Amino acid sequence: MKKAALLLLPNLIAEHKHHAPYLPASVDKAVLSLDGLIAENPHAGRRYLKRFMELRDADSVPIAICNKHSGKEDIDFLLEPVVEGQRWGFVSDGGLPCMADPGAQLVFRARQLGVAVQAFSGPSSITLSLMLSGFSAQSFCFHGYLPKEQQARQSHIRQLEEHAQQTTQIFIEAPHRNAHLLEDLLETLSPKTWLCVTWDLTLASQGVVTQPVEVWRKTPLPSIQKKPATFLISAAT
Amino acid sequence: MKKAALLLLPNLIAEHKHHAPYLPASVDKAVLSLDGLIAENPHAGRRYLKRFMELRDADSVPIAICNKHSGKEDIDFLLEPVVEGQRWGFVSDGGLPCMADPGAQLVFRARQLGVAVQAFSGPSSITLSLMLSGFSAQSFCFHGYLPKEQQARQSHIRQLEEHAQQTTQIFIEAPHRNAHLLEDLLETLSPKTWLCVTWDLTLASQGVVTQPVEVWRKTPLPSIQKKPATFLISAAT
Repeated sequence: MKKAALLLLPNLIAEHKHHAPYLPASVDKAVLSLDGLIAENPHAGRRYLKRFMELRDADSVPIAICNKHSGKEDIDFLLEPVVEGQRWGFVSDGGLPCMADPGAQLVFRARQLGVAVQAFSGPSSITLSLMLSGFSAQSFCFHGYLPKEQQARQSHIRQLEEHAQQTTQIFIEAPHRNAHLLEDLLETLSPKTWLCVTWDLTLASQGVVTQPVEVWRKTPLPSIQKKPATFLISAAT
Repeated sequence: MKKAALLLLPNLIAEHKHHAPYLPASVDKAVLSLDGLIAENPHAGRRYLKRFMELRDADSVPIAICNKHSGKEDIDFLLEPVVEGQRWGFVSDGGLPCMADPGAQLVFRARQLGVAVQAFSGPSSITLSLMLSGFSAQSFCFHGYLPKEQQARQSHIRQLEEHAQQTTQIFIEAPHRNAHLLEDLLETLSPKTWLCVTWDLTLASQGVVTQPVEVWRKTPLPSIQKKPATFLISAAT
């Protein structure tokens, strides 16, 4: 008998034809066991299922929606079939559920309802960029998105720089604002602070630049606009 | 022609006979392309290779050592073959290289030497426990190990609790001290603060408990001594 559970499924962090090089085999088995899939939107959910099964089978799996607009009553509704004994997956648009993505509300409520939760590993731009940066990951803080308003953002950057004396600081930006954030960072940070920028992780176009701000200021900037990117700062001494 | 690179390879986070359910297929291909492997100790390195290749082949791959005792001159020595055009991997004893594990020094120096670095995804107790906790991972701080001395540790816990009002806090302990840390947490934290403890992730014995400190104090404690565990605190309101 299949065990009722909410399965937290990894997604790719870039467009790839085949998923096998990036997702472990346990995910294949898990997806084939699902009674339904919760996704951030119906098209992405259907596309995800088609990676693992024939078109006809993928079309027969019910899809429900959970995203940043979902409220508490939506969460209870989404978990109802699991409470009643079914296996449902949750997948975000890219990377790991919950990690700078929706999902935590689902898991939090599932725990209160005594529903089993299983998590699978997969690519995360947070861990990949920490590894690739060369900065210490003995401790680190992930901040998600910085404030949009420039003055608030610059003062936030100065705070992060202070914390970076001890602990690697990592944050992200909406891809269409990447160039602005990079400009602000180079304007605001001290010359000796180390800045790492990664983009297009897991794609052939992937890039990582790790250097002190004073070197960043003297070299041509990489073209990161509209590309998924991460930003890391460290004292790196 | 094979491209020279330092490959950051994921390891399992628990003893499993087969690695395929936990590591993506790109890792298999990467390991078979290696000219040598850097590991935290020779036995663990050899054991890792044997997961991917026949005994005779695994025995023919040279193994070098990098761990927390490695100094700057060791790092340069380790990277020499890569600088000269070879492909070497680095694997830590469990989980992802660099993440609360050695590796960052190797990557940092590799970047200075202009050596290509590739990172592969795999299981990490940090991301798995963040997902499983039900706490927000829109932002979080990973602190590694807390101070060993009890008074310093308790004052550190109080600081983390303050930060947890905004941001999920996650930390680890040497497995033989897990029970002590849990005691200290239950003694020091406020009743309404949420504490999540995970142990034995990816094993059949895996456990996750997420509840407010006041509930922790009233219920029998899970047996986590000598098991790999993570600890997370959150305001979770």
